Amino acid sequence: MNKTIGIFGGGQLGRMMAQAALPLNIQCTFYEADTDCPSAALGQVISSQTEQGLQQFIQSADVFSLEFENTPLADVDLLTQSKALHPPRQALATAQNRLMEKALFDQLQIPVAPYQAVDSLASLQQAVTTLGLPLVLKTATGGYDGKGQFVLRSEDQIEQAWAELGPAKSLIAESFVTFSREVSIIAVRGQDGEVKTWPLAENHHHHGILSHSIVPAPNSVDLQPAAQDYITRLLNHLNYVGVLTLELFVTEQGLFANEMAPRVHNSGHWSIEGAVCSQFENHIRAVAGLPLGSTEVVRPTVMINIIGQYPKSEQVLALNGAHLHLYNKTERAGRKIGHITLMPNDSSQLTSLCRQLAKILPVPLALSEDMTI
Amino acid sequence: MNKTIGIFGGGQLGRMMAQAALPLNIQCTFYEADTDCPSAALGQVISSQTEQGLQQFIQSADVFSLEFENTPLADVDLLTQSKALHPPRQALATAQNRLMEKALFDQLQIPVAPYQAVDSLASLQQAVTTLGLPLVLKTATGGYDGKGQFVLRSEDQIEQAWAELGPAKSLIAESFVTFSREVSIIAVRGQDGEVKTWPLAENHHHHGILSHSIVPAPNSVDLQPAAQDYITRLLNHLNYVGVLTLELFVTEQGLFANEMAPRVHNSGHWSIEGAVCSQFENHIRAVAGLPLGSTEVVRPTVMINIIGQYPKSEQVLALNGAHLHLYNKTERAGRKIGHITLMPNDSSQLTSLCRQLAKILPVPLALSEDMTI
Repeated sequence: MNKTIGIFGGGQLGRMMAQAALPLNIQCTFYEADTDCPSAALGQVISSQTEQGLQQFIQSADVFSLEFENTPLADVDLLTQSKALHPPRQALATAQNRLMEKALFDQLQIPVAPYQAVDSLASLQQAVTTLGLPLVLKTATGGYDGKGQFVLRSEDQIEQAWAELGPAKSLIAESFVTFSREVSIIAVRGQDGEVKTWPLAENHHHHGILSHSIVPAPNSVDLQPAAQDYITRLLNHLNYVGVLTLELFVTEQGLFANEMAPRVHNSGHWSIEGAVCSQFENHIRAVAGLPLGSTEVVRPTVMINIIGQYPKSEQVLALNGAHLHLYNKTERAGRKIGHITLMPNDSSQLTSLCRQLAKILPVPLALSEDMTI
Repeated sequence: MNKTIGIFGGGQLGRMMAQAALPLNIQCTFYEADTDCPSAALGQVISSQTEQGLQQFIQSADVFSLEFENTPLADVDLLTQSKALHPPRQALATAQNRLMEKALFDQLQIPVAPYQAVDSLASLQQAVTTLGLPLVLKTATGGYDGKGQFVLRSEDQIEQAWAELGPAKSLIAESFVTFSREVSIIAVRGQDGEVKTWPLAENHHHHGILSHSIVPAPNSVDLQPAAQDYITRLLNHLNYVGVLTLELFVTEQGLFANEMAPRVHNSGHWSIEGAVCSQFENHIRAVAGLPLGSTEVVRPTVMINIIGQYPKSEQVLALNGAHLHLYNKTERAGRKIGHITLMPNDSSQLTSLCRQLAKILPVPLALSEDMTI
């Protein structure tokens, strides 16, 4: 043992990976612009802003992974000349380009909403004709948490949409899927090809940012097998090692894949306390070549993001079965700066706990109108 | 928030405290002779070997605690001139002296085995007459993991026992209690006086060192109320803040207190995964003045110490529901260098998992003769 894992990125995902790695005597190093990042408390941060940074980072560890989905492929190519990266480059390249991603879903027969590539005003007009309205126009690369997107509801928005997103050159137009809810599935694949899957999370957003996840997703027993099947196809096709996330829409026609993230995911933070082995520990185990841990749920859980502004810790921790995770980030509107996990003994308490929490949080919790989850 | 907690000691207990503190954005500093100690990965270690060390340590944090039971009282006295220490000095002083400890148990009507103070060969002979044989002679101060003890089985051992332990000046002779098993109870008391208790652990030793703990202790439902009552008396009497451990013998006359430890305890390591809130997190919460977390068990658990020599991580992690905690200590006979937590979905698997583990561990696991737990 005593491996060192080098991680591209040094945000809260890296922080929680390193927290999981420490009891296994696995050290982490981080490649990150901001050396005062959330991961800094747990390992050496090598600045990505210096000329020698990447070489230093490559020399700092035995095996490599990432928490930053937009890790430059050029950096990866330099790294993989001498060291191994998990997940594989192809997974990263695919996730960085919505058109490649959709093509992979098609290839593996994973259902997606109808879509079309857009690279000109004319092709956008064509997409509106073919797919109908409303549709969502997205940049093929970049964009997250609702940024880089335009929802087209009428034909007279076509020029505005093109003016806003057109400069990105490569766009994708997607049919506006009518879905009852959004879920995500997270799975891990070991170096020996073993796959383990956590139960589906039901995800709720507020202004395009994840507000909270409920796990297991209510009434999801019938959805779980298809979701597991889809993510397993992706993992095996990509010869993937580590944790992969697949976001899905629940529609009347069944599950539609939205996008994949080649990394641990916000909708899997519940697993730190709620599963026997968390997404972070299993990712570290996979990258280090160790056997995977059990992904069973120990208790039904709700994970709530802390966005923009911190609540009072003493108010949060007074809630029954509450766990608090602060990322050591400064407050800023729309920024994920921590999360809370609720796992009361009696899961019927989850709704009332969320209501209590909604009163404490400085930023709204996206509960339904009747304040249920 | 953003409090810093200064901890006397920097071993694995400090390491696991700091691991629990980190998600709460609480930093730890450590006062320790060996700056390359297990806690070093998680916070500043201030050397106790330098002249300015203690003053530096006192300035390094807002509030103080300890993981080292033999923290010198003189250091505590200097500290408490300007800063608060949890647990209180009196708890530490009492736990450092077996005679004071027994006197406190007597005062609070917590049953103990008959005992007598010994400070001369004559008083040892007197104790043998009064208490009968066999008896255990122990130094009143110092000694742990079976060191500083002599089991007297016949009168002709009196001189040998006195020769070995007499130089310590202050000794205690205890009746050799016939007990069916040893259990321990761990509780935490907050700054508002709230007390929470984990279920009893059943502890098994090998050569005087804890081998493994089973939680909840089998057939302990009838014992739990008395144990909780005893530890609550201690906590309230001492106006204690933080985690306290009470070791008990199960005898035909009921529970007898053996000793208390004014700190998190090896027999509570299971709680990292097996309880909603671990002993480490609750200790940190109490010291920081935060509300306490739930001490409920999420699954029956066996915690096994790794003593002297590391097993292969990949063999341990292949066991269903196994968690591995390595302390980053070098291997040495009789030294606690890590622990393993087993918490399978089906608790009837615990025995078979322990049998598998016994084959993997380089150092014997103290299973019963039929290899059951």
